[in-house]
Amino acid sequence: MTNATTGAARIIRTVQKYGGSSVATADHIKRVAGRVAERRRKGEQMVVVVSAMGDTTDDLIELANAINPTPNQREMDVLLHTGEIVSSTLLSMALDALGVDAVSLTGAQAGIKTDAVYGRARIADIDATRMERELAAGRVVIVAGFQGISEDFDVTTLGRGGSDTTAVALAAALKATTCEIYTDVPGIFTADPRVVPEARPLRDIGYEEMLELASTGARVMHARAVEVGAIYDVPILVASTFDASAPGTLIHREMTMEQGNKVRGIAHQDKIAKVTVRGVPDRPGIAAQIFEPLAEAHVSVDTIVQNASVERLTDLTFTVAPGDLPRALEVINALMPKIGAREVVSAPDLGTVSIVGTGMASSPGYAARMFRTLFDHNVNIDMISTSDIRITCVVGSAQVADAVRALHAAFELERG
Amino acid sequence: MTNATTGAARIIRTVQKYGGSSVATADHIKRVAGRVAERRRKGEQMVVVVSAMGDTTDDLIELANAINPTPNQREMDVLLHTGEIVSSTLLSMALDALGVDAVSLTGAQAGIKTDAVYGRARIADIDATRMERELAAGRVVIVAGFQGISEDFDVTTLGRGGSDTTAVALAAALKATTCEIYTDVPGIFTADPRVVPEARPLRDIGYEEMLELASTGARVMHARAVEVGAIYDVPILVASTFDASAPGTLIHREMTMEQGNKVRGIAHQDKIAKVTVRGVPDRPGIAAQIFEPLAEAHVSVDTIVQNASVERLTDLTFTVAPGDLPRALEVINALMPKIGAREVVSAPDLGTVSIVGTGMASSPGYAARMFRTLFDHNVNIDMISTSDIRITCVVGSAQVADAVRALHAAFELERG
Repeated sequence: MTNATTGAARIIRTVQKYGGSSVATADHIKRVAGRVAERRRKGEQMVVVVSAMGDTTDDLIELANAINPTPNQREMDVLLHTGEIVSSTLLSMALDALGVDAVSLTGAQAGIKTDAVYGRARIADIDATRMERELAAGRVVIVAGFQGISEDFDVTTLGRGGSDTTAVALAAALKATTCEIYTDVPGIFTADPRVVPEARPLRDIGYEEMLELASTGARVMHARAVEVGAIYDVPILVASTFDASAPGTLIHREMTMEQGNKVRGIAHQDKIAKVTVRGVPDRPGIAAQIFEPLAEAHVSVDTIVQNASVERLTDLTFTVAPGDLPRALEVINALMPKIGAREVVSAPDLGTVSIVGTGMASSPGYAARMFRTLFDHNVNIDMISTSDIRITCVVGSAQVADAVRALHAAFELERG
Repeated sequence: MTNATTGAARIIRTVQKYGGSSVATADHIKRVAGRVAERRRKGEQMVVVVSAMGDTTDDLIELANAINPTPNQREMDVLLHTGEIVSSTLLSMALDALGVDAVSLTGAQAGIKTDAVYGRARIADIDATRMERELAAGRVVIVAGFQGISEDFDVTTLGRGGSDTTAVALAAALKATTCEIYTDVPGIFTADPRVVPEARPLRDIGYEEMLELASTGARVMHARAVEVGAIYDVPILVASTFDASAPGTLIHREMTMEQGNKVRGIAHQDKIAKVTVRGVPDRPGIAAQIFEPLAEAHVSVDTIVQNASVERLTDLTFTVAPGDLPRALEVINALMPKIGAREVVSAPDLGTVSIVGTGMASSPGYAARMFRTLFDHNVNIDMISTSDIRITCVVGSAQVADAVRALHAAFELERG
C-alpha cells in the first residue's frame, strides 16, 4: 500500500539472437553468456535465441546426404533442429557458470506452433505461457532457434536463417522492448562494403526498405523476420556480436519523413541469367501457361517484365539464378509448341543493381538520376523493374561493381 | 463375412534396439536399415530404438564440461538427448532409401513419460497412441532411445545404457512379440571370454540371473531394462548386430526347472576396495549412522557384511569402487568418535568372483564346491556374500582371473 505512489519501474524485456558464428566454439558461447549476463544483471528480462554452432547444420546435412541423397524433409527437420538445441543448452550452462539462472527451451517447449510445411514452416502461433513463467522466476530464457512444432506434434524448421524469424516472432509474442539480432557484420550497409569501400552502416532503416535490400543481395537477415517485424511493429536492431563500438542498424517503422535524400542503399546481385520469350501471342492466361510449369520444375523466377503488346504479340522476359538457366530453357522449349511463341533467347552473364528508399515512386527524379549515372559510366541497361521503394536495372555482370560504386557516389550515400 | 472363417494371421510385432557401436557411421546405419527392412518385408511390425552414434554422447559431455565443469543436469539431459535424435532420423532416411516407409520419433513423440529426475529418470508411463497410429499406417517406427519427457514437458534421460530400458519398456507397452537388443557381443556369456577362452554364449537365462550377472560385472545390458522385462514378462533377445551366425541369448521367465547343473555363469569384478570398521558397538541404528553419511558423500557401497557380535562388539565390512576409497575413509574416520568403533582398516586390491544360477540357496552343495575349488587353486577367500541365486567371494585382485577360470571349469560351463 505504501508503495502505491512510487509506481513500478517499467521492466525492459529484450529478445536477442546470436547467429552460428557467434556461438561457434565453447569460448564464443562463454563470451555471449558474458554479454547476456551483463544485461540481466542490469535488471532486463532476457530471452536469447541461438542458431546452431558454426558449421553444425552443414555437417548434419552432409551426414544425411551420405545416407540418402534425397532425404525426407520431415526427417531432415528433426535432424537439423538438434543443432540449435545443442547451442541453447550450452549457453544455458555458460550462464549458470556465471551465476545467472537460465533455462533452455526447444521450439516446442517455447510454444512455437507452426504449419506442417517441413523445411520452411511458418509460425502460426506462439503460446508464451512457459516463457512467461520462466521470466517471472527470474530466469534467462534461451530458445533454440529455427524450429517449431506442428499441430501433430512433429518438429518443423523455418528454413535457412529461420532463427532471425524465431527472435522477431518471440519479441512480438512477448511484447519485448526490442529485438536484437547479433551477427558478424556491424549492421546494414548502404552498399556491400566489399564493393564500395566508402559504404557505411545505416543507423536506421524501414522494414520495407530492408526487405528490398535483402531480396536484392544484402542477405544480412532472413526476409521473413523483417516481415514479421513489420506486421507486429517490432523494432529490430542488427548489430555486430563482438564489436561494441558499432551501434548497429535499427529496423523500424520510420516516424520521420525524410525530406532530402531518400535513397538509403544500393543493392546488387552479381550473377543472374535472363530468358526472353519473343513473339508470345497476347492472350489471357499465357503468363500462367509459362510460369506454372517453371514453378513445378522448381525454377525460382525473380524479375518478370512483359513489354507492351504490338500486333497481339508481346515479349516476355524473366530472370533466374544462373544455375537454374538450363532447366528454365528446357521447360520453355518444351512449351514452345503449346504457347506458339516465336523464339526463346537467353543471356547468362547479367547482374542487377538497385537503388532502395521510401518515396521513390512519387519522386521520378530518382529514376532519372539513376539512369543518367549509369549512362555516364557506360553501363548499358538491359532491363528495368521498379517497386514503390526500389528501382532495379539489369546490367552486364562485369559492370555490376562499377554501377554500384557510381550510384553510391551519385546519391551521396557515403555521407551520414 | 466370407473371410470370417479364415481368421487373421497373427501379426508379429518386434522391438529392436541398436547400440551406439551399431550405428557409429553412415555405413553402419545403412547396414542396420538393411536388417530392419528385411524383417519389415516379411510382414513384421517393426519398432526400432537407437542409441547415439559412436562417441557422440562422450563428445557432447566434453563440450559441456568445457563450458561448465558442473553443468546443470536438466540442461545436460536436453543436450545429450540430441544424440539419439540424430541417429533416429538417419536410420529413418536410410530405410526410406531402401523404399521402406519409416518415421522417427523423439522420446516425447513416442509418448515416453518419466519422472523429473534428470540424468536417471524412470519411465512412469508410455502413451502408445502415436506409435500405434504409425504402425497401423505400415511404417517402421524409430524411437530415439535413452530419453523421455516429464510432466512439465521437460526432456529427461534414463542414464547410461538407458536405450535398453526404452526398448524393453516399449515392447511392454506395445505388447511386442519380442524385444531384441543388438550389441557388439554375441550374447550373455558363461563368463567374460577375455578371461575364460572356453566361455560360451548362453542360449537363455532368467531375468534374476541376468540381473545378478549384470550387477557383478557382465555389463552387457542396462539392469533396469532387465527389471522392466521381468515385471512385464518381455522376452529379451541379446544378440550381435552383425554376426548373424550367433543366435544370441534369450532373457525370459524360464519355464523349465533345470535338474542338473544350476550354475549358469561366473561373474567377476576386477577391482574393488574393502573397508572394515572393527569393534563397532552393536547397538540399533549403528548401520544407518555409518551408511547414511556415505550415501550423502556419493560413495556407492556394494557388498556389506556384518559379523556376528562378540561381547557387543561387531566388525562391519563393505566394499566400494577403488576410486571411492579415499572419500569413504574420510567419511568413516570423521565418524569414528561418534560411533565409538575401535579402528578402520582398508584393503584396496581386491576383486570379486560370483557363481550365478537359480536354486542355489536350496542346494548348499554349490557353495561347498565353490569354496573347495578356490581352495584347490590357492585362492584365499576374504569375504563371502550370498543371495538366492548368487554366491560371491571377495578375493585378491590378482587372483580374480584364476578364480573365474577355475570355477568355470569346476561347474563345467564350457559344455552346452
